[in-house]
Amino acid sequence: MQKKSTVAEVWQRKYPEQVVLAITRADDGRTNVMAVGWVAIVSDEPAMYMLGIDDNAYTLELIRKNKEFVIAFPGKAMAKETLYFGTVHGHDIDKGKASGLKFEPAEKVNAPLLADAVTNIECKLVTEYRPGNCPLVIGEVIACHVNTDENIKRLINAGTGYDLQ
Amino acid sequence: MQKKSTVAEVWQRKYPEQVVLAITRADDGRTNVMAVGWVAIVSDEPAMYMLGIDDNAYTLELIRKNKEFVIAFPGKAMAKETLYFGTVHGHDIDKGKASGLKFEPAEKVNAPLLADAVTNIECKLVTEYRPGNCPLVIGEVIACHVNTDENIKRLINAGTGYDLQ
Repeated sequence: MQKKSTVAEVWQRKYPEQVVLAITRADDGRTNVMAVGWVAIVSDEPAMYMLGIDDNAYTLELIRKNKEFVIAFPGKAMAKETLYFGTVHGHDIDKGKASGLKFEPAEKVNAPLLADAVTNIECKLVTEYRPGNCPLVIGEVIACHVNTDENIKRLINAGTGYDLQ
Repeated sequence: MQKKSTVAEVWQRKYPEQVVLAITRADDGRTNVMAVGWVAIVSDEPAMYMLGIDDNAYTLELIRKNKEFVIAFPGKAMAKETLYFGTVHGHDIDKGKASGLKFEPAEKVNAPLLADAVTNIECKLVTEYRPGNCPLVIGEVIACHVNTDENIKRLINAGTGYDLQ
């Protein structure tokens, strides 16, 4: 049975929620990484993803500038780093280096792959929408990579307050 | 370590994936329900959701016509019904009635709430995008409901071939 409620309460019950990492490269070579939960596939031919990225994010600035980015699915061992990527701004630091994680060159874009991720998806920016208060970045998939270890599973956000597991 | 791969292989490793039910009402009173996996929050003030709904879906026809719908999070006990909603077309049947599930009147829209769902979110259609080969419906949240039993948890799609659990 249902009872009248609020958006806040509905969103407390939305878990588990997906989480991906959006990886971009700054002009000076720094690797920027952001955790994104508002994400979905939005086309299969061609394959496209939507990321909701807030106005103040350095990631948004770099995607608009470079027109390319990488989407990585973090593995279950990356809870600590994903929390870091999701809660610290990257304007003044190299979040990739600071995280201690390993990166590899991508095939087609000037942003690196996350070496120990479940998968890495290279994207070029197709368009941007803004139906409400958040920019929605649409990326077309132009190259794909998977971990050679297929036993590494995707990290999920299991509950409020970044319950990453 | 990463190896070059394909979209198909990346998508085999995308699980667990979220799943919601989009509920609409036909002119003749039939309840239509569709399972949707391409879904994300796309704004928080006002709250908005995006649903990717394929061109041939009766749900898309009804959303375009009525400009309103309900998004329900199915509970873990609804695996069989969610599979049904995701694999059968509703043009000629009453999927709500055929599912055997209980429905309740909504507050603001002419589509019912799913009584035993985790939550029900009433939406009005805001706009529609089409960055690739799939229409993206954007709905603004206009009323929210949660199950009086907060122990009912969200069903997830745990793997390829509708591994609903």
